[in-house]
Amino acid sequence: MMKCVIIAAGKGERLQEKGTSKPLVNFLGLPLIERTIRTAIKAGMNEFFVVTGHEKDPLEGILNKLSEDTGLDIHTIYNPEWENKANGFSVLTVKDKIKEPFLLLMSDHLFDPSIVRNLFSKSNKPDVVLAIDTKINNPMIALDIVTKIKVDNNKITKIGKNLKQYDGFDTGIFYCKPVIFKALEICIKKDKGFLTDAIQYLADKNKVGIFKIKDKFWADINDPESYRKAESEVLKNLNKQQDGIIARYFNRPISLWISKKLSFTNITPNQISIFAFSVACIASLLFAMGSYIPLIIGGILAQISSIIDGCDGEVARLKYQESSYGGWFDAVLDRYADAFLLFGLTWHLYSNSGGNLYLIIGFFAITGSFMLSYTADKYDNLMKIYINTRNIRIGRDMRIFVILLGALLNQVELILIFVAVVMNIEAIRRMIICKNPTTETL
Amino acid sequence: MMKCVIIAAGKGERLQEKGTSKPLVNFLGLPLIERTIRTAIKAGMNEFFVVTGHEKDPLEGILNKLSEDTGLDIHTIYNPEWENKANGFSVLTVKDKIKEPFLLLMSDHLFDPSIVRNLFSKSNKPDVVLAIDTKINNPMIALDIVTKIKVDNNKITKIGKNLKQYDGFDTGIFYCKPVIFKALEICIKKDKGFLTDAIQYLADKNKVGIFKIKDKFWADINDPESYRKAESEVLKNLNKQQDGIIARYFNRPISLWISKKLSFTNITPNQISIFAFSVACIASLLFAMGSYIPLIIGGILAQISSIIDGCDGEVARLKYQESSYGGWFDAVLDRYADAFLLFGLTWHLYSNSGGNLYLIIGFFAITGSFMLSYTADKYDNLMKIYINTRNIRIGRDMRIFVILLGALLNQVELILIFVAVVMNIEAIRRMIICKNPTTETL
Repeated sequence: MMKCVIIAAGKGERLQEKGTSKPLVNFLGLPLIERTIRTAIKAGMNEFFVVTGHEKDPLEGILNKLSEDTGLDIHTIYNPEWENKANGFSVLTVKDKIKEPFLLLMSDHLFDPSIVRNLFSKSNKPDVVLAIDTKINNPMIALDIVTKIKVDNNKITKIGKNLKQYDGFDTGIFYCKPVIFKALEICIKKDKGFLTDAIQYLADKNKVGIFKIKDKFWADINDPESYRKAESEVLKNLNKQQDGIIARYFNRPISLWISKKLSFTNITPNQISIFAFSVACIASLLFAMGSYIPLIIGGILAQISSIIDGCDGEVARLKYQESSYGGWFDAVLDRYADAFLLFGLTWHLYSNSGGNLYLIIGFFAITGSFMLSYTADKYDNLMKIYINTRNIRIGRDMRIFVILLGALLNQVELILIFVAVVMNIEAIRRMIICKNPTTETL
Repeated sequence: MMKCVIIAAGKGERLQEKGTSKPLVNFLGLPLIERTIRTAIKAGMNEFFVVTGHEKDPLEGILNKLSEDTGLDIHTIYNPEWENKANGFSVLTVKDKIKEPFLLLMSDHLFDPSIVRNLFSKSNKPDVVLAIDTKINNPMIALDIVTKIKVDNNKITKIGKNLKQYDGFDTGIFYCKPVIFKALEICIKKDKGFLTDAIQYLADKNKVGIFKIKDKFWADINDPESYRKAESEVLKNLNKQQDGIIARYFNRPISLWISKKLSFTNITPNQISIFAFSVACIASLLFAMGSYIPLIIGGILAQISSIIDGCDGEVARLKYQESSYGGWFDAVLDRYADAFLLFGLTWHLYSNSGGNLYLIIGFFAITGSFMLSYTADKYDNLMKIYINTRNIRIGRDMRIFVILLGALLNQVELILIFVAVVMNIEAIRRMIICKNPTTETL
């Protein structure tokens, strides 16, 4: 069992416009506290102790539901003195419940789960290890608010908001041994009630290590500005490694904007997949009508469908609703959509000219398009092994974009020939390359 | 390093018709000794000591090549006294080379690699553990030749060819600690030079354990009869769990017969895949010609292609040439073949009648057929998890068989409608079932 303590007692006055209680602030569709807990679960935590204070009841409601959904224990501990006393008192409320090293988090900090995983996997950890951000010029950081850290010989020497000289920033992610409670008690007796005071106390004894997060993402949601910055950072991180060129530079920016809006609704990723599929079906029918105006509208709808098709995965990742089923369901619908679109174009040509040759070209376009998807997994896995640099991947984004261009220019024949030739050649190329892959051939 | 000693010095007079030296006898395309070593490699062995005698030079030639192919050390030790002395002397030749527990095998015994894996994974093994077959009525066994075992309290009490009462048979698979060499030396001094003598010596001291192989395959290739029995057993074991009904009861028996013949040639599995694909292409062209006789021939060729399509995997497994590339390459060609066959049938109808509706039916048949393959992996994995019993799997075997029937009966329209409807419904059913799989729905 890996235990995680989260301080969620404070009020967060600077973020009133987003919600009356900071842990409850809706960030891209989820309350901050849920986001923190789900990230910690991804990092391997499986028992939670959340210290509540301000707006205790709605917070407990959310946590109970989350506990049900995840099947994990999420205990809430009310700190009645949350309003008058410093945050060290909140940490102390869990003292009797935890006898082993634990993860200490703030309810309003977002972070990449790999930070916690890597922090915990270090061996020979001192009493406390604080994950710190050494990017001194990190634009995400509000210098007047952030807690600064001075480091010497990989140990913290000073911690505080007002340090003039510093080596990094406190990310709010702590590995703690239970000795932290003792340190808190000692400091409180001296009337120093903040968590930072206890850290400084232990740092004076050379007992606080650091863990550099390097370029991993973290954010402290303090005010509307940091909220907006974190939002755009989280969205940016949704980009997928295996995106093709069109997806990366054209579809993704638009789909991210849509996903941001969608994240605040109850629309599920699978519903988005079905919607994108439906749009593609309408586009196919418009293609099949055979005249130019429907062709243009169809081309635009096909491209819109391709863009929306990115949103299902984005929303799923944003709201921790990823599932292998979801990805598969989306892929299966995409294959149907591809076939319908190409058949619509084939019918467009065939009904206009009656040329049998178009049927054969259309057949090869549909087949090649399928084969490209059918061979994609194997090929992508090889790509991962053999090359790290990006090269041009002929995928669905490209296919649909070609359809859009062809429709706008009324060059359906060209599209079909292009798809038929390029897709099949690429499929055959993959068959040859995958046999004896080398870094040169890929 | 897991070491394996193989005795391959003897002559094997009873199998002269198959080859002049038993380890060199060609069994389904590979010399027995290569088969033994490759099986042991699959079981986790990675260093080999082969004791040679009769026909030393050709044997060493094969072993050197095998060592190159596998990248593993295969040492050969010549036993100059192989013709006059008992087989215990052969085992003794490796005495100075082995200081840890090892696997001892006969060069003429075939076995399922899981026997060795399970034997080695047992803990607290005594000095020797012999894998024994307790199926007293096993039809594979020649009672006059096999070495019998009497067991008491999970230890061997007696071993010999002439035991009247026995509990099992010696499979020729031994786990040995180096103390076996000591036992051999003691027995040889008493003029008892067989491996069996040393085992009996250790058994008298209650030091020989047993490992029951249960219903796992093993065979001692002694004479033409045991050779033939083992051959048909090995072929039978090539049946695949995920075979559909047509594959299991119609295609497989024929393809196994063909694979048996093919195994003795140099034809590679990929060449077989390409041949099966070519036959399907010819069938498609015959379909597209539009008249009945070519339709019948095409239907038969399609079924032949489907049967041969089983041979690539069978030959690969028979000759230890399996590769993930091979399976993938075969699958990609199958998808092309499926598309061509269905397009051929569509063209058949279309060119006969000019009916546009046939184009749409053909499109859905091709698409549905693709989707069934595209969804197969996910669905099959779920099947493995949720059900153990066999149920009807609508796969490629069924699809091609329907095409054969339709072609023979000149009912192309029916085939296409059937494929279009059934394949798409099945694909949609899979999409629904995979979402919330339960034992009832599958």
